[in-house]
Amino acid sequence: MSDIPMHARRHYQMVDVGDKNVTRRRAIASGSIHLGEIAYPAVRRGTLPKGDPLVLAEAAGVMAAKRTGDLIPLCHPLGLDHVALAFLLDDDALRVDVFCQAATSARTGVEMEALTGVQVALLTIWDLAKQVEPKLQIDQVRLLLKEGGKSGRWIHPDGLPPLPDGFERE
Amino acid sequence: MSDIPMHARRHYQMVDVGDKNVTRRRAIASGSIHLGEIAYPAVRRGTLPKGDPLVLAEAAGVMAAKRTGDLIPLCHPLGLDHVALAFLLDDDALRVDVFCQAATSARTGVEMEALTGVQVALLTIWDLAKQVEPKLQIDQVRLLLKEGGKSGRWIHPDGLPPLPDGFERE
Amino acid sequence: MSDIPMHARRHYQMVDVGDKNVTRRRAIASGSIHLGEIAYPAVRRGTLPKGDPLVLAEAAGVMAAKRTGDLIPLCHPLGLDHVALAFLLDDDALRVDVFCQAATSARTGVEMEALTGVQVALLTIWDLAKQVEPKLQIDQVRLLLKEGGKSGRWIHPDGLPPLPDGFERE
Amino acid sequence: MSDIPMHARRHYQMVDVGDKNVTRRRAIASGSIHLGEIAYPAVRRGTLPKGDPLVLAEAAGVMAAKRTGDLIPLCHPLGLDHVALAFLLDDDALRVDVFCQAATSARTGVEMEALTGVQVALLTIWDLAKQVEPKLQIDQVRLLLKEGGKSGRWIHPDGLPPLPDGFERE
Amino acid sequence: MSDIPMHARRHYQMVDVGDKNVTRRRAIASGSIHLGEIAYPAVRRGTLPKGDPLVLAEAAGVMAAKRTGDLIPLCHPLGLDHVALAFLLDDDALRVDVFCQAATSARTGVEMEALTGVQVALLTIWDLAKQVEPKLQIDQVRLLLKEGGKSGRWIHPDGLPPLPDGFERE
Amino acid sequence: MSDIPMHARRHYQMVDVGDKNVTRRRAIASGSIHLGEIAYPAVRRGTLPKGDPLVLAEAAGVMAAKRTGDLIPLCHPLGLDHVALAFLLDDDALRVDVFCQAATSARTGVEMEALTGVQVALLTIWDLAKQVEPKLQIDQVRLLLKEGGKSGRWIHPDGLPPLPDGFERE
Repeated sequence: MSDIPMHARRHYQMVDVGDKNVTRRRAIASGSIHLGEIAYPAVRRGTLPKGDPLVLAEAAGVMAAKRTGDLIPLCHPLGLDHVALAFLLDDDALRVDVFCQAATSARTGVEMEALTGVQVALLTIWDLAKQVEPKLQIDQVRLLLKEGGKSGRWIHPDGLPPLPDGFERE
Repeated sequence: MSDIPMHARRHYQMVDVGDKNVTRRRAIASGSIHLGEIAYPAVRRGTLPKGDPLVLAEAAGVMAAKRTGDLIPLCHPLGLDHVALAFLLDDDALRVDVFCQAATSARTGVEMEALTGVQVALLTIWDLAKQVEPKLQIDQVRLLLKEGGKSGRWIHPDGLPPLPDGFERE
Repeated sequence: MSDIPMHARRHYQMVDVGDKNVTRRRAIASGSIHLGEIAYPAVRRGTLPKGDPLVLAEAAGVMAAKRTGDLIPLCHPLGLDHVALAFLLDDDALRVDVFCQAATSARTGVEMEALTGVQVALLTIWDLAKQVEPKLQIDQVRLLLKEGGKSGRWIHPDGLPPLPDGFERE
Repeated sequence: MSDIPMHARRHYQMVDVGDKNVTRRRAIASGSIHLGEIAYPAVRRGTLPKGDPLVLAEAAGVMAAKRTGDLIPLCHPLGLDHVALAFLLDDDALRVDVFCQAATSARTGVEMEALTGVQVALLTIWDLAKQVEPKLQIDQVRLLLKEGGKSGRWIHPDGLPPLPDGFERE
Repeated sequence: MSDIPMHARRHYQMVDVGDKNVTRRRAIASGSIHLGEIAYPAVRRGTLPKGDPLVLAEAAGVMAAKRTGDLIPLCHPLGLDHVALAFLLDDDALRVDVFCQAATSARTGVEMEALTGVQVALLTIWDLAKQVEPKLQIDQVRLLLKEGGKSGRWIHPDGLPPLPDGFERE
Repeated sequence: MSDIPMHARRHYQMVDVGDKNVTRRRAIASGSIHLGEIAYPAVRRGTLPKGDPLVLAEAAGVMAAKRTGDLIPLCHPLGLDHVALAFLLDDDALRVDVFCQAATSARTGVEMEALTGVQVALLTIWDLAKQVEPKLQIDQVRLLLKEGGKSGRWIHPDGLPPLPDGFERE
């Protein structure tokens, strides 16, 4: 051991947002689950044995977005003005794209809330589809847009894909 | 499947409260548990084998009201200024009436918080009384009053019953 | 203060189930929400502004049943084999009846799990219906059946109402 | 409305695992986060302003795997024997691969636990890296292996990638 | 960066308890809060402005013990057979001693559950007493006894203090 | 039973903070774990079999501080601007001192959040050290400083010990 009897350690820095302004902040994230030839039609037609995964995924995604601060260690716990999820079904790619929008009036942004909503919605689809197809894959989980606060609006450099109704740029 | 390769789905609308004002909002809810001739006296006198259900129900109701956003999918997560529970014991009806008042300074109301506090308090009484009487019944869970926000005060059309101290109309 | 320098207090007795057998245990509970002439048809037809409350209530009820030990202070935390919710819509009474069945292979029963599933499902319907009708009421929350363990099967003395598919007596 | 006064609805089927055997069950899942030229070296060298994301992601992933039943509506709540996370840093692809292994002695498998551990670990890395690079992307979230129970061992049809120590085939 | 393109990291080892036997396991922990001349009599007589802290602390301690796996990262999530709390009031030392006993039939012990119950009970007393006295202090949080499993019974080397009823050595 | 048919009970008073001002509020708490001659060097050098307890304790403490309102019955649920933990290792006393600072912009203080962060961090160190030494002890859990709100700054009457970087008096 060292000669110094007292030795200090601190490993993480949660940003102190006390000096930031309460402003409207919004974020949209998206991600995809590749379902394949067996599971996709069953999701699309709502014929999976456990039930329709999309409605359940929407409920689970909204609930998970609200619990982001419980899951991600350095995320600030905060109230939310709004959470919404929507799904695009791509018959060619046999894939479901999940979109999650979160909004708050707070001192910090809601990117992680939007991403958490996407991830748990994707996992919920997985949970219902895995009975018919264990080879599933989640890809392209991305932040599409964030706005509000000092840094203003940021849009993914690849541009925005077509967004579901209610997820417009504002 | 359809001819349209992309098909969008969205099932729920959580209200976006971003444009609403932060105002004081309050709600009172109530509900009753019918205990019967065996369990009621034991609750009344605090002689149930597991302990006094009313103090425990008060603690559980306050804690549940704070977790409303975790339980009810489309409820906004929000801070609370106040939660209180109180109990009326009706020796004639062999019934306990539970009242829960919740208050916040926020963009949305707290009806669901008051109702969740009532429901979990009632379940806690049930949990302690069920050992002596499995035939219990919860009835008349109602919102009695809400106030604050654009819609102002609403009182149950049947009028307010006698309220416990501290649950007045303000 | 008393003359005795040490004074002990203990208020509650959570049953120690260590000596009980691991057996299959099952419970069914039910409860009703009275929706009235405006909200009932909107629930029935799925035209409430926030979305279809029944699918959401089913998701919320299942999730709440799994968290019973988090909400009810003296409930044992335990794994569950099964949770199911079902809804009966009564066009005459303008009422939705919620049924929840829970099952486990454990040392203690699941009455509180079934009841918690019912209560949170009812609150979720309330949350979606309250926008069109604040005068709602929850009634007749009851345990219908429990079985397993030393005490064996218990059926509500009023008998069982017609149960949804999959909630049979076994 | 219909002519039938009573109309039943049930939307989801949580599998009743009461008849399944308690056996050792294990699953391994993986996923990747693409960090890019700015964030990758900072993650690799531990120089991100908020701290080392990998240790934190390991803690968050383990904790999230334990809460899978809270997040995914139809997942059974169950005890776990083991959860482990490990990270592979790919200097060429500027990418971190996250692996999560979960194991239980229960009546149902732990695929969703392993996947939830991966997803929340990836989100935690994102949360710390986003300050220096908002253009991140999560890809290739897959189940690699599951074993135990009636269906026995399943390995992803693409075969297993090199696994971290302690994640071997057993 | 290194020459090796792939670099693996793993920081924690949650014990894999899959090979351990399911046995009865029990633990008792204790801890003290020093209340001082103003707060102690108010706790003792139940005259604190917010209410009687001991009943509330008992409820909070039981609930926290059940959530240990949610709070302590490497603790296994497990069912509990029993949790109990009891309080000794020491009029001479102006101190409350909290005892928590936890028991399970599982593959791993419940020391952390007993300790978590003690800590949250102590914090709950603090929360109610702090209004009349901010200078409080928690001391002597210790594990007193654990038994069950391969390592058998362990008793604190200082021996057991007088234990409340129901916390005997068995 | 009494002659009065209706008998009211209410046991707790959660302070209604609706009339208080939203101001910056901050608190610092600390506590110590005595590790002894076997566990201390292993913690200090990071050689415990389960991993480095300090990084994990920091993560667990931050997460627990955010969940204070879930654990302590009468604590208001609130957003936090900041949580930080730091550790002092005392080679002479074979002890780790944990410090937690919490800050908010709210209507009520964050003493309980700082204390909860300390307690869960201490328990996390315990969980990793107990494998090599079951005789551990937590002592001197104290509130060191609180500021903000009507009551202004309060400093522990014994004065402040040397604080880690970033925990200054402001």
